[in-house]
Amino acid sequence: MAVLGIDLGATKVAAALFNEEGEILSRKQSYLEGRKGAEAGELVAATALSFFEQSDIKGIGVCVPGIVYSKRNTVWCPNIPGWEDFPLKETIEKVCPNVPVHIESDRTCYILGEKWKGVAKDCDNAIYIAVGSGIGAGILLDGRIIHGANDIVGATGWMALESDYDKDWDECGCFETFASGNGIAYQASKLFGREISSPEVFSLYESNDSKAVRVIEKAIQMWGKGAANLVSLFDPEMIVFGGGVFSGPAKKLIPRIYNEALKWGQPISMKNVKFLSSGISSDAALLGAGYSVLY
Amino acid sequence: MAVLGIDLGATKVAAALFNEEGEILSRKQSYLEGRKGAEAGELVAATALSFFEQSDIKGIGVCVPGIVYSKRNTVWCPNIPGWEDFPLKETIEKVCPNVPVHIESDRTCYILGEKWKGVAKDCDNAIYIAVGSGIGAGILLDGRIIHGANDIVGATGWMALESDYDKDWDECGCFETFASGNGIAYQASKLFGREISSPEVFSLYESNDSKAVRVIEKAIQMWGKGAANLVSLFDPEMIVFGGGVFSGPAKKLIPRIYNEALKWGQPISMKNVKFLSSGISSDAALLGAGYSVLY
Repeated sequence: MAVLGIDLGATKVAAALFNEEGEILSRKQSYLEGRKGAEAGELVAATALSFFEQSDIKGIGVCVPGIVYSKRNTVWCPNIPGWEDFPLKETIEKVCPNVPVHIESDRTCYILGEKWKGVAKDCDNAIYIAVGSGIGAGILLDGRIIHGANDIVGATGWMALESDYDKDWDECGCFETFASGNGIAYQASKLFGREISSPEVFSLYESNDSKAVRVIEKAIQMWGKGAANLVSLFDPEMIVFGGGVFSGPAKKLIPRIYNEALKWGQPISMKNVKFLSSGISSDAALLGAGYSVLY
Repeated sequence: MAVLGIDLGATKVAAALFNEEGEILSRKQSYLEGRKGAEAGELVAATALSFFEQSDIKGIGVCVPGIVYSKRNTVWCPNIPGWEDFPLKETIEKVCPNVPVHIESDRTCYILGEKWKGVAKDCDNAIYIAVGSGIGAGILLDGRIIHGANDIVGATGWMALESDYDKDWDECGCFETFASGNGIAYQASKLFGREISSPEVFSLYESNDSKAVRVIEKAIQMWGKGAANLVSLFDPEMIVFGGGVFSGPAKKLIPRIYNEALKWGQPISMKNVKFLSSGISSDAALLGAGYSVLY
């Protein structure tokens, strides 16, 4: 039987039908086109339903960019107006009855994707650190996905990694303000005295621009300290670096990040852990959504 | 039916028989008196066996000050020579057949004790941060005790909480070198230019000695940052402060630690979490060992 994975982005609904080995059988995309509230939910449900003609479907997994309230089965997605506490699971179940529907956050789907088809295949303890506009982590611990009291486990970007507090971090947290894509752009913009994007900072870093070097070297130190803390606290087999920043130019910095982490982290755990880049490219969320049905 | 809890300390074996409500039915202590290797294991087993005359026993839980290798069922206890990889479970099972034997680390037992009879009774997500000579954490997450890849989850003392690395932290980690009992004594000894114990530092702090104030204020900041990181990463309902340091003079600093943490941690999780002192006194490990049978 097949499983259906749906990845809800900021503007589109990507869906794929997988066999139980994680191979894609067919794909489809719909566009939100400004839909909000119940209308956006109905688009997701209709996208799911359209696959039922082709195949027997074992279950539906949906990846959402936000928080999944696991006790109430509702979601908060800041990108979709009216989705502060939206009953997405119920909306899909009404349209596609008799199949289980799983809703998971994007960071949970990333680590599930790695577990199914990426570098974490044989792992029971692995952390995916997603460095994009923000920083978050999907955590597989003792073979299970963890959620926490408010379903916001892994709020990695908020880690305290500096000696004294700075008001500058109020909005996004200490780690994130230095080491997310937006954080790198922010630090560089202050230093260059003009708006500058994180890809531009990386390309200036490649050409040894001293200001860009300062920003990226600081980010490397922060990634090292942040990853070390994940290792000391969770004792995982691997840390997988992914997200926009690590699908690009930061990937080759991973060995330097490991060396920084080695100074700080619990020595036994650090000796045994691997730091890797994501083994799956753009389909991580879709794969993870699909695998949430089988997991 | 009763459960038997055994707390293996540096010099003695404390044991208690509990009813299923966690009330102590009887107690016993034996002394290691220099026993090592198999002999020390046999003392634990004989202590356990001696309770079987009195009562029907449902299971035995043992708290050890070290690492429990959950896959091999062996333990590493640095205090007992020859216990680098000692088969404690098997040793007890040979002498007390037909009852389940659970071996757990001290930090796991602390949080289990709080769950059974302390402040974490109704919690599925709670962290016990044990601040004694070192710093470690027992973690209850989504209703389960977590272990990690090498059974050393919660190595909290190794957290990176400062801007730049200092060789000073090589042996025990950044957090621990400032904020454990030994860490407080170490920082104060450097400042005072003489050997000084952590209780002495606290009593000088009470009388407003400027050097002691510096050491304890730094520890408060570190506890705040460390606890904030536990909150952002694990999203617990509560952080329980325990261990030697928090059973004494540090207990009243908890509201100040919360205020420091509030600056750093994920705001939703920080708003919802409680910072508390341990609800059970000297019997935390014994209670946790007993509860490991029922849990």
